[in-house]
Amino acid sequence: MPKIVAIVSGGMDSVTMAHQLKEQGHDLHLLSVDYGQRHRKEHRFAAAAAERLGAVHQVADLSAMGALLRGSSLTDPTVDVPEQTWTGYGESPNIVPNRNALLLSVAFAVAVAEKAQAVAIGIMADDTVSVPDSTPAFLESFIAMERIATAGYAHPDLDLLAPLSGLGKKDVVTLGERLGVPWTETWTCLRGQDDHCARCAACWERQEAFTAAGVQDPTIYQEHQS
Amino acid sequence: MPKIVAIVSGGMDSVTMAHQLKEQGHDLHLLSVDYGQRHRKEHRFAAAAAERLGAVHQVADLSAMGALLRGSSLTDPTVDVPEQTWTGYGESPNIVPNRNALLLSVAFAVAVAEKAQAVAIGIMADDTVSVPDSTPAFLESFIAMERIATAGYAHPDLDLLAPLSGLGKKDVVTLGERLGVPWTETWTCLRGQDDHCARCAACWERQEAFTAAGVQDPTIYQEHQS
Repeated sequence: MPKIVAIVSGGMDSVTMAHQLKEQGHDLHLLSVDYGQRHRKEHRFAAAAAERLGAVHQVADLSAMGALLRGSSLTDPTVDVPEQTWTGYGESPNIVPNRNALLLSVAFAVAVAEKAQAVAIGIMADDTVSVPDSTPAFLESFIAMERIATAGYAHPDLDLLAPLSGLGKKDVVTLGERLGVPWTETWTCLRGQDDHCARCAACWERQEAFTAAGVQDPTIYQEHQS
Repeated sequence: MPKIVAIVSGGMDSVTMAHQLKEQGHDLHLLSVDYGQRHRKEHRFAAAAAERLGAVHQVADLSAMGALLRGSSLTDPTVDVPEQTWTGYGESPNIVPNRNALLLSVAFAVAVAEKAQAVAIGIMADDTVSVPDSTPAFLESFIAMERIATAGYAHPDLDLLAPLSGLGKKDVVTLGERLGVPWTETWTCLRGQDDHCARCAACWERQEAFTAAGVQDPTIYQEHQS
């Protein structure tokens, strides 16, 4: 089976993807990218996944990018992570613009060095609603660009996989349950504290997904003062 | 005039580009990227250019990428920078595959944060011979991808400029002379030692360009034992 560089943050989507790729028999190379996010503790869960799956795990330290990515709650210490609220397209402070383009550029550079045939990213259907660099049009455009950028250096059949792109968060929980993903070994919370906060947008989605899938949520959430 | 994030390494091409953009009256934001290259001392010359031109200068520290970019003489300490020799397409150890895609992804993330209208890169015509991510097809593909990736976040007229793309190295020297570029305040050598080595592929091109342009080369080159 071809070698795949899989971008695994340590969140429930990317960890489920890694388990799925392993089940399919791929030669897995897990890559986490530290872009200065508050919740970089997620990488410890990516490392745990790699150990379970017998895969290599690398962390690309781009943490200095955080200081350049001003205006996002994930990377700018002057912007708080908001309590979950609905925000329209282009309005969420939790978006890091161009993040997926950056992560994928790093991953394709690694794919060339590792002579991998593909890069995989754990984007799922719900991400496309508010994140422009998660849409199918973006992914198609990105692989077209990379085939030009790495011609003569990369694997001749270079590809970009987004195996969860047809799934909602609920479906990811269902898939992960089947694959035996230990959910407490995944990290979602944007605040990156000791326990999941239960109130940021990412924690909200996590809780909703378990409920919708009918799977008991084993996550430890912080207790909040009322 | 629009704000431009210009990728300036400190080499003669990118520094000449910065002078040209300044002459055109742009609001300049210079960005250097440390991707773990041996010759990262070039950034000190990018900083000098920024000071001369009254521009902001940032260095994005991606130096940890060097350890992931195995196989290139620029980033892999186990691969020596060769003496200048002709190598065919896809064969030069001095290529860092996907480097321009990586640099541009960083620059576009910065462009969004800085509300800049464009990113500029100092690719010139000679680069397209052996570096796939320097070709016009690559640049067209990249900006198409970025317009999708940053939609709703970036400047609505987001663009990618490569103002030297029609010029050979000789033409860059001619242009830089007219613009008053202080050549000793630029760095080319891939070995990154005290003085230019005069023998790596980049030094070779530098010397040839001055000769072809009929401009005296003020560079201090190392003396070699015969």
